[in-house]
This record gives sequence, structure tokens and C-alpha cells, in this order.
Amino acid sequence: MQAEVLAIGTELLLGQTVDTNSAWIGERLAELGVTLRRKTVVADRPEDVRAALDAVLPDTRWVLITGGLGPTKDDLTKNVLNEYFGGKLVFRPEIYAHIEALFARMGRVPGPLNRGQAELPDVCEPLPNAKGTAPGMLFSRGEVRFASMPGVPYEMKHLMEAHVLPRIKAESDAHIEHRFFMVQGIPESELAARIADWESSLADGLSLAYLPSPGVVKLRLTARTRDPREAAALLEPASSGLRGVLGRDIFAEDWKTLEEVVGERLVAAGQSLAVAESCTGGAISALVTRVPGSSRYLLGGVVAYANEVKVRMLGVNEADLLMHGAVSEPVVRAMARGVRKRFGSDWGLASSGVAGPDGGTPEKPVGTVWLAVSGPGVEWAARFQMGDHRERTVRKSVLEVLNRLRGFLPQEPAKD
Amino acid sequence: MQAEVLAIGTELLLGQTVDTNSAWIGERLAELGVTLRRKTVVADRPEDVRAALDAVLPDTRWVLITGGLGPTKDDLTKNVLNEYFGGKLVFRPEIYAHIEALFARMGRVPGPLNRGQAELPDVCEPLPNAKGTAPGMLFSRGEVRFASMPGVPYEMKHLMEAHVLPRIKAESDAHIEHRFFMVQGIPESELAARIADWESSLADGLSLAYLPSPGVVKLRLTARTRDPREAAALLEPASSGLRGVLGRDIFAEDWKTLEEVVGERLVAAGQSLAVAESCTGGAISALVTRVPGSSRYLLGGVVAYANEVKVRMLGVNEADLLMHGAVSEPVVRAMARGVRKRFGSDWGLASSGVAGPDGGTPEKPVGTVWLAVSGPGVEWAARFQMGDHRERTVRKSVLEVLNRLRGFLPQEPAKD
Repeated sequence: MQAEVLAIGTELLLGQTVDTNSAWIGERLAELGVTLRRKTVVADRPEDVRAALDAVLPDTRWVLITGGLGPTKDDLTKNVLNEYFGGKLVFRPEIYAHIEALFARMGRVPGPLNRGQAELPDVCEPLPNAKGTAPGMLFSRGEVRFASMPGVPYEMKHLMEAHVLPRIKAESDAHIEHRFFMVQGIPESELAARIADWESSLADGLSLAYLPSPGVVKLRLTARTRDPREAAALLEPASSGLRGVLGRDIFAEDWKTLEEVVGERLVAAGQSLAVAESCTGGAISALVTRVPGSSRYLLGGVVAYANEVKVRMLGVNEADLLMHGAVSEPVVRAMARGVRKRFGSDWGLASSGVAGPDGGTPEKPVGTVWLAVSGPGVEWAARFQMGDHRERTVRKSVLEVLNRLRGFLPQEPAKD
Repeated sequence: MQAEVLAIGTELLLGQTVDTNSAWIGERLAELGVTLRRKTVVADRPEDVRAALDAVLPDTRWVLITGGLGPTKDDLTKNVLNEYFGGKLVFRPEIYAHIEALFARMGRVPGPLNRGQAELPDVCEPLPNAKGTAPGMLFSRGEVRFASMPGVPYEMKHLMEAHVLPRIKAESDAHIEHRFFMVQGIPESELAARIADWESSLADGLSLAYLPSPGVVKLRLTARTRDPREAAALLEPASSGLRGVLGRDIFAEDWKTLEEVVGERLVAAGQSLAVAESCTGGAISALVTRVPGSSRYLLGGVVAYANEVKVRMLGVNEADLLMHGAVSEPVVRAMARGVRKRFGSDWGLASSGVAGPDGGTPEKPVGTVWLAVSGPGVEWAARFQMGDHRERTVRKSVLEVLNRLRGFLPQEPAKD
């Protein structure tokens, strides 16, 4: 099945808003095995919206329209669609009652503009919007469905999940099922080479997608079958095979972040963590604390940007700093041990590097990073070359050291 | 002048990649007074790329094409454009020399696929790419220019800034000039109300745009005139007027981030900073250290997630913790003072709050945050209610406390 997205909003073209809706829609459609063939973004201009409706591709079955609704946009999309599909606007008391109820919750009453929002084309099926005042609308032309939704991400997602995706799924004949495998620290090309044999032996009905983001690659294994039993029969052996190839390089088999997995394992082990950061400047602990409940295992950390802080607060040896420099193995090891001791934590992490753009030398060029882990019976340190992009160096260093920690933590009652 | 964007990439339609390129392009074009009329995203399929090229709108002068270049995509865009414009591929030694030089820097030699990247249509003008192996290409059809660029954001930006934007600017007849005013901590609607009178009295030829992002609103004042002198005559009095209304709530008059402005002022004052973070978990120092050269003023920080750390490393009074709790005025003040003393810095910042989703109480619901600044002759602390979104609470807290610090720092030889 083929779909298109039509996003309406001058703010998307002026660069005032990054369009995250389309990526979300694309991912949901891919999960249902629907091909998103094209996406078009047009300004809040009736003629441009009409031109886009005229240009819908022959094989498209669903047109997902976002934006251009609501009083501040003069309900542009609604009026264009009403005219386009030859309808007339009719006041819908049940929609207005919903708008009144939403306003009442904020102790206000709707204005005349909001009353207009309850007028809908008589040729559409309203899609009730529990999250906002603008209802969605469903139009049909032959076999093609046009779903109009507000551009506000959480309203759009609500309408998609409540009304649109279930209908698309019901119309689809295939059973689609996915497994996700999260991998950190292996470049996409290297990963592809490592799993090439496994991939080329995948059974019919299975397909693999690489979903890369900085430092992490998500592998999505998809089965397209007639029913769940057939899907399981394909997915189980293929998943086992992939686990055999990648082993513990898979940090999660789910939609999980590395910081969530590390957190789960620390909680399961009843162990605690402290962090000593130089070049990452607080980014390790900032990422760890993005996980709700991270106070159960993160005791805290020291951002030791100045050398004096490394000595005074982490117990780094001044002679090591003088002899080897701050970006060195003895210093990063001492930082990890020092923060662990100072905080009384089970685990200590440390970073020290040249994030750049300045500060590089021939022996330690920009992008040189030392990372260390210290823990019960474990001490690890290694040098990395992270490239010459300051933010990416920090991001990669954070993920690398967390992934190393994960490797040392007791595994969960393993699937693998 | 009118432009269109054509983004090529199946990964953009599958939702694997959020398209941030288009927003950046849209913003740059808006700054030049160019109307981005439409944006189309298509998959890596030759027929879809051709269909999009056929559908270019009659008034479009520039078509900005991103993606579909490079060996892993089989140089789809290059081959389609070559055929579309009736050219043939020619090996360009100077392009290949550049590719070789890039590989040499990583101690590698190009493979056969990379050799193919040096073959370009003879009907295009190559746009040298200093940031990567795939050169840009410029094609013409009558008055219309087609610029093809890689999809990698920093390569695309480089090609736009080095080659494309200067040409667009040269072709434009209007003189467009901007002033940017950066404001933190005032919601967009409140800001709009405060400057409504000023805005309604703007002279002809001036326009104002709100560019909001979480915690920060960028105001863009644009003059569209015949020459720079006329622009200055409009912009100067309007800028003075805005400064009169907003005063020091404007944290920068430029494309600057708050962390850059704080850094500049600390450097100018020859003063140093240390940070004590609880609910922000390292995000304050992580943001401060995003600025290259921040080691000149940031000594470091303590992430004091556990109460014991607050006592032991920051000198917070145990009795205060027991009596008032960690999220309280005496504790956050003690943290700011303590980190300043411990690090010997001129300034200390501190945060303590309930980021959520758990941990809220009736007196201190989720989103309650105490922030503090301690410095020479200054001590400030205040309570905020940041809402119930964990990441946004952290982000807003970081910006809020940095903006307070900015307010206390000596002003630069002021424009205002």
C-alpha cells in the first residue's frame, strides 16, 4: 500500500519549525508495511494546497495531511478541502460541546473563532480530537482516503493512533512484525560487513533496515507474513542467528536507549555510579540523568575541567599531569578511581580529551579522547580518535564509555 | 525570487532521519528575501526524482536538491541529473585529487567506488566540497538553476554558504538586512504583548518574525530596501525602540547562544565559574562546555545527585536538608556558595528540583526547581515551576540560571 504526506505550513518553509511530524508518520507507516512514496510541504496558500491535491500520485491510497487548521490559520485546510470535495460547512453540536469542555477545564469560554471550528464539511467524517479543539477530517475520492489533522505534534499523533493507523492496518492484508537490535560503537559500514553472511541468508518474508544515529545503529528486522505464527517462525531463528554474530555488541533488543539499559542493569545489580568528566563537560551525567529514576544509581559526578580540580577533587597525581598531560592514560585511570572512591560508588567513569577546535598537538590531535571505567575487580582505559567535530566527539565519547560500562555490568537474565 | 527544495532520500520517508536541512535552508533563504515555495521529499528512485524535476513550478528560479549522492546511493542523483540534462560523465582529475587528499588524512586510499565520485556530468559546473568526497553540481535550464548537494548537513551547509547563497544573493535585486534580538525566559505570547505597540509602529519596509525554540525566542527584524543606507535608516531607530522596551531582557543582538554570551562576558571580566547541579544532572556544565575555549572560565562542577554528595562535597548543612528538603532555598543557596568556595571560582551556579515524572509532592509538585547564583557581592535564588516534561524542565532550568548569571555579569561596552 502506498501513502503520501502533505504538510501545510508556511512556518515549515521559513525554517521556523523543524518538521518532526513527517519522520514520525514515516516510521509508523513503515512499521505497517506501507510505503510513504512522497512528502510535500506547501505554504498556507489555498492555490498551493489545491495544486498538491491535484498532484496526488496514481497509486496512492492514503494522503495524510497535517497543518493549516485552527483559528489562527483561518482554517485554511478545512475550507480548501470543503471546496475541493464539493461540500458545505455544517455546524456540529457534538464537536462544539467538546470545544466548550476543553475551554471549561482552563476556566474559559470559547470565542466566536472557536465556534467556527465546530463547522465541518458535510462530505467528511469527523475524527474526534481528544487533545485539542480542531477535529480531524476524513475525505474519500474513489479508493483514496484523505485524512486531515492538526500540525501540533501531539494532536497529530493522537489522531493517527486513534483513527488513522487502525484504519490503515485494517485495510492492509499483510501481517507485519518487527524486532529491534540496538548496537553502539560500530560504524554502519563495519556492522554491515560483519552481518553480511547472516543478512544474505535471511528467509523470504524477512527484511532488514539500518536506522543509524550518531554513535548508535538500530537494526530493524521485519517479517511480512500472513499471521503472527508465521512471523514468529521466521523471526525467532533469524534473531538467534544475529545474536550469534553480534553477541554482546547488541546492547538492547528493543526500542531502548543505552542510558536506559545501563540504568536497568545498575538497578538489577543494586550498584551505584559516579562520573568524572573533563572533555565531556557534564554530558555523561546529563545523559544518565535523562532517565527518570536515575537517582537510584547515580550518586553524582565531578566536572574536572581545570587540572587543579582533577588533583584536588579526584586525587589525580600532579606528577602524572606534568609528565603525561591531562589527556593521558594514567590521568584518566586516576580520575575514574578517584571519583569512585570520593563518592563511594561501585563504578566510576572518566573522560579526558581534546574536544577542539583548539588545543590539539601532533601527538594528541583534536579528537583524541581517553576514557576509563573503574569498578569491582575491573579497570579499563582506552584511547580513541573521535574526529574534529566538537559536539560529535563529546556525544561519541559519552556513548562509548557508557557502552563499556554496560559490558562490565552483570547481564540481565539474558535472552542471548 | 522563488525557490524550491527537493530532498532525495528513502531514509527521510521511512522516518529514519529527521530532515533538519530543509529548515536551515528555509531560514537562510528567508534571510535573503527569497520565498521557499515548496519542498518535496522523494525516495531514492530515479522515476520519482525525474517526476519531481518535471513538476518544478513555473516561477521557481532556484531548485535546491539535497541527498542521493555518494557511493552507497549509487550516485543516484548524479546519474538522474546527468541524463535529465543530456550530459555525459567525465572524469575530473582535480576532484579526484581532492578525494585522495581527504583519504590520505585518514591514512587510507580511495577505492574504485570513490573514483566514480570524480566523474561528473559535462553539462554541470562542479561545486567544490571542502568537507567531503561528493562534489556539488550546478545545472541550468533557461533561467532556472538546479544545485545538487550531499544530504549530510555539514556538507550541505558548506556548499550552500560557499557557492549557492552568494549566487542567489548576487541575483537578488532587493537589499535585505536583518537584526537579531535574542530573548530568554519570556513566553512568546507575553513577549508579543510587551512589544505590540512598538511592532505596530514599524515603518514600511520593516518586518518582524518570531523564531521560538524551547526557552529562547529569537526576534528577527528585517529591512527590505534598495540599499544599505536606506536599510540602516530604518533599522537603527527601530532597534533603539526595541531596546527601550525590552532593555536587558535582550541577551544578545546577534546569532548568538546564551552560553556564548555568558562565556564572552566571563572572559571580558576575567572571571571564572563553577557549577553545582542536582536536577539538571550535568546539563548546565555540558552546555557551558559546548563553547570552544570554555576552559578559560569554567573550572568545573559537581553533579550532586545524592544528598550525601551535597553535604560532603558542597558543604550543604545536613540540618537544612532534613528540615527543608533538597529542593529548597537554603540548600540551593548553600550549593552555589559551596561550589564557588570549593573550586575557588568567582561565580557559582546551582540547581535543585523535581524533574519528574516521580518525586512530586503537593508542596513541591513535579517541575518545581530552585536555582541560585553566588558571586562577588551577589547572591540570588528563586523558585520556578517548569511544567511536567522532564527534558524541558532541565533545558529551561539551564537557560534560566545562565541568563540570571548573564544579568549579574559586567555588561560589555554596551550597544544599548
